[in-house]
Amino acid sequence: MRRLGKRTLAAAVLAGSLAIWAATVAASGPDPSGRGPRNVILLIGDGMGDSEITMARNYWKGAGGRLAMDSLPSTGAYTTYSVEEFDPSKPDYVTDSSASATGFATGHKTSDKRIGTSPGDDDDLKTILELAQERGMKTGFATTSGISTATEAAFTSHVRFRGCMGPESMQQCLIDRKSHDGPGSIAEQQVDHGVDVMLGGGRTYFEQRIDAGPDRGQTVLEAARRHGFDVALDANELRAARRDRKLLGLFSPVGMSAEWSGDPAKPGQGSGPQRCEENRRPEDQPSLVAMARTTLERLENDKGFFALVEGANIDTYSHSANPCQEIGEAVEFDRAVRVVLDYAKNHPNTLVVVTADHGHAGQIVPVDAETDSLPPGVFSTLVTNEGARMRIAYDTVPAGGLQKHTGTQVRIAAQGPHADGVLGVTDQTDLFGTMKAAIGG
Amino acid sequence: MRRLGKRTLAAAVLAGSLAIWAATVAASGPDPSGRGPRNVILLIGDGMGDSEITMARNYWKGAGGRLAMDSLPSTGAYTTYSVEEFDPSKPDYVTDSSASATGFATGHKTSDKRIGTSPGDDDDLKTILELAQERGMKTGFATTSGISTATEAAFTSHVRFRGCMGPESMQQCLIDRKSHDGPGSIAEQQVDHGVDVMLGGGRTYFEQRIDAGPDRGQTVLEAARRHGFDVALDANELRAARRDRKLLGLFSPVGMSAEWSGDPAKPGQGSGPQRCEENRRPEDQPSLVAMARTTLERLENDKGFFALVEGANIDTYSHSANPCQEIGEAVEFDRAVRVVLDYAKNHPNTLVVVTADHGHAGQIVPVDAETDSLPPGVFSTLVTNEGARMRIAYDTVPAGGLQKHTGTQVRIAAQGPHADGVLGVTDQTDLFGTMKAAIGG
Repeated sequence: MRRLGKRTLAAAVLAGSLAIWAATVAASGPDPSGRGPRNVILLIGDGMGDSEITMARNYWKGAGGRLAMDSLPSTGAYTTYSVEEFDPSKPDYVTDSSASATGFATGHKTSDKRIGTSPGDDDDLKTILELAQERGMKTGFATTSGISTATEAAFTSHVRFRGCMGPESMQQCLIDRKSHDGPGSIAEQQVDHGVDVMLGGGRTYFEQRIDAGPDRGQTVLEAARRHGFDVALDANELRAARRDRKLLGLFSPVGMSAEWSGDPAKPGQGSGPQRCEENRRPEDQPSLVAMARTTLERLENDKGFFALVEGANIDTYSHSANPCQEIGEAVEFDRAVRVVLDYAKNHPNTLVVVTADHGHAGQIVPVDAETDSLPPGVFSTLVTNEGARMRIAYDTVPAGGLQKHTGTQVRIAAQGPHADGVLGVTDQTDLFGTMKAAIGG
Repeated sequence: MRRLGKRTLAAAVLAGSLAIWAATVAASGPDPSGRGPRNVILLIGDGMGDSEITMARNYWKGAGGRLAMDSLPSTGAYTTYSVEEFDPSKPDYVTDSSASATGFATGHKTSDKRIGTSPGDDDDLKTILELAQERGMKTGFATTSGISTATEAAFTSHVRFRGCMGPESMQQCLIDRKSHDGPGSIAEQQVDHGVDVMLGGGRTYFEQRIDAGPDRGQTVLEAARRHGFDVALDANELRAARRDRKLLGLFSPVGMSAEWSGDPAKPGQGSGPQRCEENRRPEDQPSLVAMARTTLERLENDKGFFALVEGANIDTYSHSANPCQEIGEAVEFDRAVRVVLDYAKNHPNTLVVVTADHGHAGQIVPVDAETDSLPPGVFSTLVTNEGARMRIAYDTVPAGGLQKHTGTQVRIAAQGPHADGVLGVTDQTDLFGTMKAAIGG
């Protein structure tokens, strides 16, 4: 009875939302039919829980200011847990990025470190990107991590272990090797999948040599060129890339460089009070905004597209307990959200979802604490743009260690067709269903 | 332009929600007109951020299970910050409970430790409970803390310092004393305000003697009886209380007892793995569920009511880093949410809001960490009802200290008239406006 009641309400909310969307479509856009192709754009802030969002807002816009990601009208929370490899009925309350991404990419829970495969029996799980391709839609992504790391990998490949990023890094995925009639490493599969746009770091894995098949002995990068990709290796090449070919951009050996810098969190009295240094990214690396803009330009077509934009290094710099670097990545991610929302304004038939894959270590703690009650791990005090002090503590491991993910539910926000799928409390696997509905079933 | 666009969308969402609400009203309830009086029920889980909600869900219902509070259809996040006493243009990124409650009770930001008064100039701020009284509505609350502590105080009194709970505890509120022609302590003001139902702990402050005015020399409790309150001092007296008088229930000297028990979090190897012991509350103390039910029964009337139900000790046991006690309080709070939702099912003209006043210290961290990467503060490993291990770490202060609040945005969920005021990202002060709109104002 309760479930029925809830579903009835949800249906009514959905109806309301469809009305809004129809009104939006009718009221805007260059397409006189009021429709245009159906697009899905998923924006993932890696490790960007509510705490991380609040830090970035406080520092950049002020506590009473608003981020671009704050403006999406449909909002909720989702549960991020993964499951145990040897007993998938049991939850693992703190997920990693690959299991969480597999959850929303495929609609199936899996165990940590898996990529697009099921726990235990290692079955390939169809991804929303593959479904979009089957429908004739274009697909692509932009990320600040290596393009073969967990989040992008989960949409574009199927292996048992996230570390199997290139053909010479297959120690934990022996059966997936091309020389064993497998689909190959993540990088190989990404090329073979024919994804239209792939932008980020991770050149190292594309410089490894393929061990079997028609491309045997070539690097993955050489094979990509042969299979129709134009390759860009810096920001200039990205700007100059040909528009009539698929696009592969690899702008750094592994992850891309930080947008901002500052002192890492420290034990004892902490670091700071400090202001963050902005604009630290090397000019030869494109920004996430530039990559997101290129992705949308390249993917726009009359059959619609699926795009993924990830602020991957929010997670990276939370692991290393550097609040300025972490916030800088969240700010750049939010600027990319703004680019996407501007696009959606003129293309209202676009589902936009902004969310995270899991929470992270950083907490905003009081600044007025006595010396004997300072956080036991590491912390830093920042002076925000509105001139107030904000203390960020990282305490999931002792000073010097890599900070851990947390198991909290995280925020999810959406606009456009089927946006109301994110209202209330959902699970990461429900996001797959929402996106699937948006691309037409 | 962006703001306008957002407002247009919000208006459309609101219109959709009103349609849903109208449909709900039309489809249910014993009132053939489909309306009934307008009620507002606010449920506050003190310190119940997304991390705390997830802990309780994981332990009690399982990671894939759902709490009663998860079922509300309109959801968002709100910012909890307070402001500086001597420069209210500056934020204090980590609020205490009194400033946050003053924010949603009055619609105005204030500084930590203030109760229903403005920062710096100490003006009284009108509360939603007072507005409801002006409209002829009944008012009341139930809490597991002392009834004169921060959250309830902010709705029912105006003093400069939260500690001024009784007439003999006015050292930091000298100008507020009755002997100085002030309104008196929080307890005195609560009686003078004529709140219809007040249930919780905090008897100590009601046993203090009034220092001036017509009740001079009497205890606050004696004055309450004289001013028309029936007083209940244990669960039996609560059941037997007269229904024709206002009701004051004081079931413990200060805060009420914990529902569950278990080992506190510990440093080093942590405590546990452990199961929590349930049903630990002394029988002479009523549960929050019993108090919430009584509150609704007593307040129901044909002019509507405002009710506050608080799970206050979620915060208490997070401060003391006891995960079983903390989760037990969150579970009992969720049971009270269920009571309220059942009420609203038959009284659809009721706005129900479930939220928190601030985040707290506890984090769900991985259980598989190596010994050299265990949390630096205190932690405990629980074995949840679904048989999995969940590790809760508290690391805002060194082992043995009282844990701190955090500054994260927190979840807010609602149903009923004007529920869509909570969608997206709002501020704690916006909740006042949502409730005010719901009571017609």
